[in-house]
Amino acid sequence: MDLPKRVRLVEVGPRDGLQNEAKPVPVDVKVELIDRLTAAGHTTVESGSFVSPRWVPQMASTDEVMARINRKPGVSYPVLVPNKQGMNGAVEARCEEVAVFTAASEAFCRKNTNCSIDESFERFAPVIEAAQKHGMRVRGYISTVVACPYSGDVAPEAVAILADRLFRMGCYEISLGDTIGVGTPAKCVAMVDAVAQHVPREKLAAHFHDTYGQSLANILAVMGRGITVFDTAVAGLGGCPYAKGASGNVGTEDVIYMLNGLGIAHGVDLDAIAETGRFICAALGREPASKVAQALKAQCAA
Amino acid sequence: MDLPKRVRLVEVGPRDGLQNEAKPVPVDVKVELIDRLTAAGHTTVESGSFVSPRWVPQMASTDEVMARINRKPGVSYPVLVPNKQGMNGAVEARCEEVAVFTAASEAFCRKNTNCSIDESFERFAPVIEAAQKHGMRVRGYISTVVACPYSGDVAPEAVAILADRLFRMGCYEISLGDTIGVGTPAKCVAMVDAVAQHVPREKLAAHFHDTYGQSLANILAVMGRGITVFDTAVAGLGGCPYAKGASGNVGTEDVIYMLNGLGIAHGVDLDAIAETGRFICAALGREPASKVAQALKAQCAA
Repeated sequence: MDLPKRVRLVEVGPRDGLQNEAKPVPVDVKVELIDRLTAAGHTTVESGSFVSPRWVPQMASTDEVMARINRKPGVSYPVLVPNKQGMNGAVEARCEEVAVFTAASEAFCRKNTNCSIDESFERFAPVIEAAQKHGMRVRGYISTVVACPYSGDVAPEAVAILADRLFRMGCYEISLGDTIGVGTPAKCVAMVDAVAQHVPREKLAAHFHDTYGQSLANILAVMGRGITVFDTAVAGLGGCPYAKGASGNVGTEDVIYMLNGLGIAHGVDLDAIAETGRFICAALGREPASKVAQALKAQCAA
Repeated sequence: MDLPKRVRLVEVGPRDGLQNEAKPVPVDVKVELIDRLTAAGHTTVESGSFVSPRWVPQMASTDEVMARINRKPGVSYPVLVPNKQGMNGAVEARCEEVAVFTAASEAFCRKNTNCSIDESFERFAPVIEAAQKHGMRVRGYISTVVACPYSGDVAPEAVAILADRLFRMGCYEISLGDTIGVGTPAKCVAMVDAVAQHVPREKLAAHFHDTYGQSLANILAVMGRGITVFDTAVAGLGGCPYAKGASGNVGTEDVIYMLNGLGIAHGVDLDAIAETGRFICAALGREPASKVAQALKAQCAA
């Protein structure tokens, strides 16, 4: 297998993982979560979003979170910013990295952000501009890169066009999200290969949800195609709002376990992440979705 | 990706999946389970074992199960047979296929079957002989092919030697079992490649447990190395007796979902299997471990 020697993990648990939680997660818990994640070795931790608290009440405290975390040198704490107004919040909170987002499906974009794909670009164009003025890095998210829950399959070329556009606008990295987790290895490879005709592979990240348990196989497949950045969430945090009860982001523990077995460097300590997973799951009153987390817990109990 | 056009699934839910259940599963339920699995398209369903009911009480009713299932033409219903005595039961039950088993780790073999690896061969040599006399096919199982819960890593060459021995003794297929589910893609590939130096790849089956969530990635990896037979269990039945609470065999639903996405033929209907998974999980009073099963259930509820 022709695999990379080193990859980078982007921990999205504190934002993508927690944003759909029914009960608000206290700021104290979020701060401790983020600090534990960076202590475990993560160098990129998505820490919140400056979206309207009316739409995403879970993220309402992002300014406070950003003020209280222990910002480690060399670690990036991107926050999601949908528009100019959100950008003001990010600047006030002294964020050094923001993330903008669109979708590869018109139907999903409208349902999720109440605008067309083109309009989503119009909304975040000034965000990218302001970020550049403030010397902030910008990450770009494209969701529904394999399929849309409303309109079905998404053409790889549709994703490629958007990735190209985001990259030209100045995003340093494009995260390709299989939002509903329906992708399988060949589809993910086809999508990545299409995008790579426009954007260098080292500028792409794969963002897989484990709804159908396919994430690790997909990560393995796209690693074989030169992708070296992976979005993961500790304990497999995050639900799928389109299929209640289904699991969320691929678990950081599961990805680390596979990478360790493959001898691929990533810099994150499995035991510390598993411990962090137990911490946040205890706070949420639930079991971790990550199988590695479950197995390690069972092992401890035995 | 260089993958096969067609694979065969061996459904092990009724045996490997149920053998560790604390409460006995009624014969009626087992019979319906097996008949549903073959109705869904499975051509090989491991249906029980003729081991001492003192050791595996769950399998005590295998003779009755074999008498009552609807034996479909072209479908094989292998049963596990540890020794000559078990073989008598299999002959009486008019079984057409038996399976013998050993382990790649001495420590595991002793703990699991109370004999050395060499002694395990001595025990099943007369089984294979009798099977040949009765015109029965013999499948060979090797467990702990990646690592042992007692003695750690297992050398690929150790597995290869045993597979070679089983194959020469007349096993038509050798199932390579990562009993504790700790394998990752490169380790599984190394193991399979070592074995394939002695036994043709088309005579090998991969038997992965999903304890650490690695099964699909491992299946994808070894499919890329010419393996075309996979042992799976509906709903991901089966626990890991060495880590209570950890999950068991890779879920048939999850494997089918990946294969369907890859366009690889296998002949089994996903919806019928998912329905069968709901049937057996309802009987067991538990949720399916298979993520595809969970996602389909969540989708139905939504």
